Amino acid sequence: MHKLPNIPALVEGILEGDRARLARGITLVESRAVKHRPLARELMQAILPHSGGAIRVGLTGTPGAGKSTFIEALGLYLCGLGKKVAVLAVDPSSSVTGGSILGDKTRMEELCREPNAFIRPSPSGRSLGGVAARTREALLLCEAAGYDVILVETVGVGQSETAVRTMTDFFLLLQIAGGGDELQGIKKGVIELADAIVVNKADGDNKVRANQARVEFARIMQVLHPFTPGWKPQALACSALEKQGMEAIWEMILRFSEELKESGVFEQRRREQNIDWFRSLLQQSVFERFADEHKERISSIESAVAQGELPVSNALDQLLNEA
Amino acid sequence: MHKLPNIPALVEGILEGDRARLARGITLVESRAVKHRPLARELMQAILPHSGGAIRVGLTGTPGAGKSTFIEALGLYLCGLGKKVAVLAVDPSSSVTGGSILGDKTRMEELCREPNAFIRPSPSGRSLGGVAARTREALLLCEAAGYDVILVETVGVGQSETAVRTMTDFFLLLQIAGGGDELQGIKKGVIELADAIVVNKADGDNKVRANQARVEFARIMQVLHPFTPGWKPQALACSALEKQGMEAIWEMILRFSEELKESGVFEQRRREQNIDWFRSLLQQSVFERFADEHKERISSIESAVAQGELPVSNALDQLLNEA
Repeated sequence: MHKLPNIPALVEGILEGDRARLARGITLVESRAVKHRPLARELMQAILPHSGGAIRVGLTGTPGAGKSTFIEALGLYLCGLGKKVAVLAVDPSSSVTGGSILGDKTRMEELCREPNAFIRPSPSGRSLGGVAARTREALLLCEAAGYDVILVETVGVGQSETAVRTMTDFFLLLQIAGGGDELQGIKKGVIELADAIVVNKADGDNKVRANQARVEFARIMQVLHPFTPGWKPQALACSALEKQGMEAIWEMILRFSEELKESGVFEQRRREQNIDWFRSLLQQSVFERFADEHKERISSIESAVAQGELPVSNALDQLLNEA
Repeated sequence: MHKLPNIPALVEGILEGDRARLARGITLVESRAVKHRPLARELMQAILPHSGGAIRVGLTGTPGAGKSTFIEALGLYLCGLGKKVAVLAVDPSSSVTGGSILGDKTRMEELCREPNAFIRPSPSGRSLGGVAARTREALLLCEAAGYDVILVETVGVGQSETAVRTMTDFFLLLQIAGGGDELQGIKKGVIELADAIVVNKADGDNKVRANQARVEFARIMQVLHPFTPGWKPQALACSALEKQGMEAIWEMILRFSEELKESGVFEQRRREQNIDWFRSLLQQSVFERFADEHKERISSIESAVAQGELPVSNALDQLLNEA
């Protein structure tokens, strides 16, 4: 971004659904350059009243479960229904390892050619908090641009599933049949975040095994506390390769949205997500500022604590009384 | 505590293993009275070089698993070996609901009469952070008083298992046979913290079922990422009622301690626990001070954020630029 953007023109373009302007707006909010900050704030303030209209679907899955094929199949199905679909990602490592499946757009060739689809790789950055905050703002911009469904994908580095969970309405875990032991390979704690588990690769010789896995997942999810109040987590099977099962998945998401809007859980959760997001950023920023101002003192006190020379609460009192 | 304690005398008494003085020292560090804070700091500073000698065992379990009977059986077994055993608790709700099993000492009558056992209920307080911090300091005091094994129990309110995990070396989850579906009734995420699951009530008619449950737990734990690097989580069965199985449990804990001390994981984890404890208290204190100074402004900005009137990052910039 060499030239500073004209915000009213950018806002107008985004609200008209212009993809190039949307992309530029996202680049602006992703920028960490100081001169961009007030412009990004102005942009967010202007588009905020136009956001909130999409259903936000989080997606993660075991490596090898076929996430990119699945996103392409679901995205194409939704475009076929006349929906506008945006695909975003939260992947704190993508800038380094290229781990994000969205880093490699060629893996979603067909979806990339759809005029109603918008695909954006993960913002770069090493801190999950920063990456997630920028994806949240990209999500709001996509909503202002009229996208009906926002898919937010993560490959699951660190706590990134939790970050995606806290910015989405529906959370989908993509799995494959695990040869009888379905728990194997599921990352700790992720199953408990899911509103649905979808067993992919239910095709050819694998169809029977995939359905057995689906039954086993349904059994496991039954004993877990549902993440979304009032929603019983579902287990489905599909073949992203053969583009089978997308209708049932979409109908489930629609039913989820309708039921939760009726019960008030939908709006309630979005309000809570907003507050939690604000509080966690605030807490982090306040602490960063403090840590920055007292860097050397903290580091010397920490090493005394680690060595067992200074009791923790004494260390705390010392540091806070000085500051 | 009506009279301010004489710290050198208190330290001397604690180091001699005087239980009354130990109790008094714990009361001092638990006190939130401002006049007690410098004395508590002085006490902690004096005893710190004498702490660290015990094996710290965390314990939680499904309600009805027989935690108090188990603690009594294990405690008596250890006293029988000539060990000194302290039993502490982390239960943020105990002051309100009386939920802690240690609130009712009569349930551990035999252990209470042991001269080598020291039992202390959970400090009161509504914040888990505060309750946990005071239990950590009580633990260090017990070590200075020469206790060989510290059992830290929690009934599992909120995130209290995680708090206990971060202050102990070994973490034990007590279960009972669940009638075929062993996952049912286990609180989310707790199984992943455990170094061992012990299936209690392996007695009478229940013996076969308890052993089946043990086999099932062993199978489940095999597919989970071990919490302690280099230690394969174990599944055992016991009868606390009949005081059977305590030897195998203790031998497992000893083996854990030996192996981890050899690999360096034991000391490494304790250092990390100290640093993490310090950092989390620091982060919390710094934020509390900020939140206190800017209470009204935060609350009005939060409601604008919740209503969707103000973008989160704008809210943050506003607040931090003013502060």
